[in-house]
Amino acid sequence: MKVHPLYDRVLLKRLEEQEVKRGGIIIPDSAKEKPLEAEIIEAGKGRVNDEGKTIGLAVKKGDHVLIGKYSGTEVTIDGVELVIVREEEILAVIEK
Amino acid sequence: MKVHPLYDRVLLKRLEEQEVKRGGIIIPDSAKEKPLEAEIIEAGKGRVNDEGKTIGLAVKKGDHVLIGKYSGTEVTIDGVELVIVREEEILAVIEK
Amino acid sequence: MKVHPLYDRVLLKRLEEQEVKRGGIIIPDSAKEKPLEAEIIEAGKGRVNDEGKTIGLAVKKGDHVLIGKYSGTEVTIDGVELVIVREEEILAVIEK
Amino acid sequence: MKVHPLYDRVLLKRLEEQEVKRGGIIIPDSAKEKPLEAEIIEAGKGRVNDEGKTIGLAVKKGDHVLIGKYSGTEVTIDGVELVIVREEEILAVIEK
Amino acid sequence: MKVHPLYDRVLLKRLEEQEVKRGGIIIPDSAKEKPLEAEIIEAGKGRVNDEGKTIGLAVKKGDHVLIGKYSGTEVTIDGVELVIVREEEILAVIEK
Amino acid sequence: MKVHPLYDRVLLKRLEEQEVKRGGIIIPDSAKEKPLEAEIIEAGKGRVNDEGKTIGLAVKKGDHVLIGKYSGTEVTIDGVELVIVREEEILAVIEK
Amino acid sequence: MKVHPLYDRVLLKRLEEQEVKRGGIIIPDSAKEKPLEAEIIEAGKGRVNDEGKTIGLAVKKGDHVLIGKYSGTEVTIDGVELVIVREEEILAVIEK
Repeated sequence: MKVHPLYDRVLLKRLEEQEVKRGGIIIPDSAKEKPLEAEIIEAGKGRVNDEGKTIGLAVKKGDHVLIGKYSGTEVTIDGVELVIVREEEILAVIEK
Repeated sequence: MKVHPLYDRVLLKRLEEQEVKRGGIIIPDSAKEKPLEAEIIEAGKGRVNDEGKTIGLAVKKGDHVLIGKYSGTEVTIDGVELVIVREEEILAVIEK
Repeated sequence: MKVHPLYDRVLLKRLEEQEVKRGGIIIPDSAKEKPLEAEIIEAGKGRVNDEGKTIGLAVKKGDHVLIGKYSGTEVTIDGVELVIVREEEILAVIEK
Repeated sequence: MKVHPLYDRVLLKRLEEQEVKRGGIIIPDSAKEKPLEAEIIEAGKGRVNDEGKTIGLAVKKGDHVLIGKYSGTEVTIDGVELVIVREEEILAVIEK
Repeated sequence: MKVHPLYDRVLLKRLEEQEVKRGGIIIPDSAKEKPLEAEIIEAGKGRVNDEGKTIGLAVKKGDHVLIGKYSGTEVTIDGVELVIVREEEILAVIEK
Repeated sequence: MKVHPLYDRVLLKRLEEQEVKRGGIIIPDSAKEKPLEAEIIEAGKGRVNDEGKTIGLAVKKGDHVLIGKYSGTEVTIDGVELVIVREEEILAVIEK
Repeated sequence: MKVHPLYDRVLLKRLEEQEVKRGGIIIPDSAKEKPLEAEIIEAGKGRVNDEGKTIGLAVKKGDHVLIGKYSGTEVTIDGVELVIVREEEILAVIEK
């Protein structure tokens, strides 16, 4: 099943803490509210402005990003826990 | 009786949990606040911008979508429980 | 006495529950907060945009519409209970 | 003393309940929060948009209108109790 | 010392109740929240729109106006109690 | 060390009450919430509008202004207590 | 690992109090809520306006800036404590 987020929404898979550690971000137990790394599974086409023109997103499928721990709406697709956020809620793109 | 949602509103039929399961989304009892799958019965023509031009919707009749469990306004049409949401409240379109 | 709603306001007559039932919408006692059917008695000319141009409404006199049970402001005109809402508060137009 | 309301403001005289009754609107004691009839004593020239152009009002001096019972700011001019509202707060124009 | 209010701000001198009474507005003790008469000592040049153009004010130095009793910020200039308000907070201009 | 406020922000030095008194504004002990006089140490270049154009400020370095007692953010630069405000928070320019 | 802040976001490293003191800003223990000095590690490309045009930032990598003590979101990258803020939250650029 494919999920196409609408407009400026993005479907993300949060990365396991272990993967995160290997990725370079250390998340101590006492700081679980810190942003987490996630991978973009599918991105919307962008918001539509008041003239009906689509303004594309700055992120794309496959990007690794930082999002707040409590950002977005959780959803389970084909048994996998994912999260849908607005691009606005993405803090940064990570490059390794 | 036909119901024509106004502007950016969309008339939806929530899909039964059983159908949802067959559709691939597993909703455990303990997570009932997660988004639910729904089918678009009728879509509005789109919002009207400040110059009077209609900006069409990205979804259409027949689309399967994800909406928040508590999104929209419930309405009973010809004995069937439906829900009216703004397109803004639709998280994603689902393709199987 | 004629009442001309201003701008995007609409004057409505709520339909009796009995009429509503005949119209196809069943409203059980336990769900009185659900939207109700209403008939447009008089519609405003539309909102005026920032350049002074009037953007007409999508609804017109005689339309049957769905509005929230607690939408709008109640007013008694010539002994009849009516309600004035903004077009924004109308969920859908009903066609039978 | 003349009072010129600024921009989209309107100076109104609320009509006595007795006059209101003769005008067709019946206001029972138990429904005092319902809109009341009022007469426009003086109207502003309209709001000024972001380019400095004045967008005129839809109401004018002498119009009878419906306003919310608690709308606007009360003011006493030459011993007469009046009320200043924004045109936005006027629900409808009444024609007899 | 001269005080030049910025943009859409206006420097006002509230008129004494005695003057006010002579001016035609009667303010009973029990209604001290009613708008008060004030004289414009100095007016700003107007707000600057998003293109950098100044949109002039509708009021000018010397105008008598009505403002809410608690509007604006009090300031003491050369020993005189004055008040600075935004033009938005002025209800009306008074002409005698 | 030089501090360049960003966009529409302004760096100010509050004037001592003694200086203020000589400047003509009397601030009794019981009215410490009244606006205070301050001198502009450095001004930003102005806000940038939605097309990327800078809209300059109305105030400049050296201007004496009135600001609310609790406006802005306090900052200590080279041992001197200063305050950073948005130009929006400046009530008026003072000329002696 | 490189972190690219999105749009108008900026990645900052707060400077130690000791460094700050040498930099000229004295932060007494009793005033820890005062703005702190920080260095820009990486800046976003700027916000995208409603026509899809990018409006660049006024700050760049390497700039020393003042931000509120509690501004932004903390993040740990490769073991270093950093903070991501919107450019809007930066009070001033510091030049030594």
